Amino acid sequence: MECQDYGLNRSVERRNLNLNPLQRGGVLPKEARVALYEFSDGYSVCDYCAGRLDEISKPAISSFLEDMARFINIDIARTVHGAREGKFAVMHALCNPGDTIIVDGNAHYTTHLAAERNGLEIIEVPNSSHPEYIINPEKYREVLENSIDEGKEIKLAVLTHVDGNYGNLTDATRIGKITADNNIPLLLNCAYSMGRLPIDAKKMNVDFVVGSGHKSMAASGPIGILGIREEWAAKILERSKRHQVKELEMLGCTSRGAPIATLMASFPHVIDRVNSWKDEIKKTRHFVKRLEEIEGVTQIGVKPTEHDLVRFETPGFDEIAQNHPRKGFFLYEELKKRNIVGIKRGQTKWFKCSVYGFTKEQIDYISLSFKEIAEKNR
Amino acid sequence: MECQDYGLNRSVERRNLNLNPLQRGGVLPKEARVALYEFSDGYSVCDYCAGRLDEISKPAISSFLEDMARFINIDIARTVHGAREGKFAVMHALCNPGDTIIVDGNAHYTTHLAAERNGLEIIEVPNSSHPEYIINPEKYREVLENSIDEGKEIKLAVLTHVDGNYGNLTDATRIGKITADNNIPLLLNCAYSMGRLPIDAKKMNVDFVVGSGHKSMAASGPIGILGIREEWAAKILERSKRHQVKELEMLGCTSRGAPIATLMASFPHVIDRVNSWKDEIKKTRHFVKRLEEIEGVTQIGVKPTEHDLVRFETPGFDEIAQNHPRKGFFLYEELKKRNIVGIKRGQTKWFKCSVYGFTKEQIDYISLSFKEIAEKNR
Repeated sequence: MECQDYGLNRSVERRNLNLNPLQRGGVLPKEARVALYEFSDGYSVCDYCAGRLDEISKPAISSFLEDMARFINIDIARTVHGAREGKFAVMHALCNPGDTIIVDGNAHYTTHLAAERNGLEIIEVPNSSHPEYIINPEKYREVLENSIDEGKEIKLAVLTHVDGNYGNLTDATRIGKITADNNIPLLLNCAYSMGRLPIDAKKMNVDFVVGSGHKSMAASGPIGILGIREEWAAKILERSKRHQVKELEMLGCTSRGAPIATLMASFPHVIDRVNSWKDEIKKTRHFVKRLEEIEGVTQIGVKPTEHDLVRFETPGFDEIAQNHPRKGFFLYEELKKRNIVGIKRGQTKWFKCSVYGFTKEQIDYISLSFKEIAEKNR
Repeated sequence: MECQDYGLNRSVERRNLNLNPLQRGGVLPKEARVALYEFSDGYSVCDYCAGRLDEISKPAISSFLEDMARFINIDIARTVHGAREGKFAVMHALCNPGDTIIVDGNAHYTTHLAAERNGLEIIEVPNSSHPEYIINPEKYREVLENSIDEGKEIKLAVLTHVDGNYGNLTDATRIGKITADNNIPLLLNCAYSMGRLPIDAKKMNVDFVVGSGHKSMAASGPIGILGIREEWAAKILERSKRHQVKELEMLGCTSRGAPIATLMASFPHVIDRVNSWKDEIKKTRHFVKRLEEIEGVTQIGVKPTEHDLVRFETPGFDEIAQNHPRKGFFLYEELKKRNIVGIKRGQTKWFKCSVYGFTKEQIDYISLSFKEIAEKNR
């Protein structure tokens, strides 16, 4: 049998300045590249497994998970295949089909899918709508308490710490207090926060946190973190009756390969960069300021932004597209000429982007490029 | 926060002759190492995603999945995180908690876990016990038909194509006929076969197949293949009501990172090696013959073996261990001196091993080493 050429090349995306917010937090530092080489083969972390991935001591997965739990201040940490698989596991362990959960209106689609795959009903807390799309803690309280008053039994509350559309940072501490006051366990989706900004699960009163290695922890995907408070451990990490050391929701083991090695190798780098989060915000705000100097470019979501993922409405660029011989493709093409990628081809009405991890000089170059493109084509 | 040194080094296992059957089929060819480098960052395969991993055309995941389906002769293929996650997805889509499935007595523990996590009851077809541990098709029929006669509704049949304890190859074609005659869909676990030996799902009358990239398809873990016959596609790949392009059992997307790039890059190599399966069997039988020349070493499972994973009972080595100053560790240590690894430390009563992918010369060196160790220490 013949197979095709699958085009397994990513040099454009690797070598240029990539503004795709999905990619900025997953770039590997060199230590992780070494680990990837070292652990590239198959089941590479399983050489010395005695039956439990989380207890392997060579490489020191067990120590790593303890350090990770400390890092996000929660009792127990496990690796999962990603944030979505972590959410699915928590919902699966806690709920039965037909149960109801409450979810913020900026939730990632995978929160909805994890619930739907588990047969759960979702009550949604709406955001404040255009242009800020805020998840207001008092609104969360109102929707939650009204539902309880109506006799709904709510099994789990889910909150998106930072959403992937507007980069809004929710007030997890206040919402954590509200859900705790109502005796509802809270799952915080930190896919866009854990590994970028400091997470203190206990301070925020959350029972479960999920994070994403490939999205925000400088790891090769797919891998994520599930953090669990002690009081829920027996439920979430219930063991198999037949294979008594194996955890059911983990199907025994999860990250049996290279991604966990990269997550571990990147961890010192991630600890460092989380300490510099304020500088990242400063850089992003500077970038937003520069971009908003272009006519017809406005950041939406909370202002000033509290995250590197920012969404711009860009009627200015869209107007250019109407009359440009390359139509909507002009922006992508002009950026690419300047070694900037990551804005979707053909998109000019709005775009999401991130300058996370770029230097001040790179950011100035990027914002200047947008300005030049606007001026040249107007 | 400080973190520890996690010992992210695997040079001993990489550079020596590794007999661990878990590792032999997952060694990356050089093309896959290049792909791993190219796609090392985070969500690397998602640059050009329009919402569905299986439809991404750059890299050509969609073409790859079509080629893969053709390779194992089934209608539809998806990547999953591994064989276990594929089994869980099929059971989850097909069954409700409390339902009953039938499983062969040589099933991997993850088959039991996937069932238990889904709240399913298992009816087990016993193997023929020591020393062959055969799963007899007529026994499968008997247990299945007796259960049906007793009024049990069986939702799914699971068969382990090659088991991980004895390396026995089951007669999937005959068992596929039996389950089809009884109108029970059959899931074939090919974790130890797909990527090593030819798989023809339709010829074997199976409805679902799962394979393991890290175990048998020269891929960096975690990744697996789920193959589905057309008539089950609507059920297994049911879409979300809210996010209509997203497949529920996949939680939207599965292998969003480097492992899928390595699986794709290794595919031509895997197609080639499957064509040389008969040579691998010859080499393994030669190895078994040489090892059985050592006093107190006997292969168990079906003889002559039909797979590279072989299990030996080794009372000869165990006797040496009783009187050796290093006790049970002598075997591991003597092998390691000879650059052979992968037999568990301290284990001398029996061991599993594989010489898959080694040259005839390497195999002769390995068997000679075992002989020398036996003679020197007796």
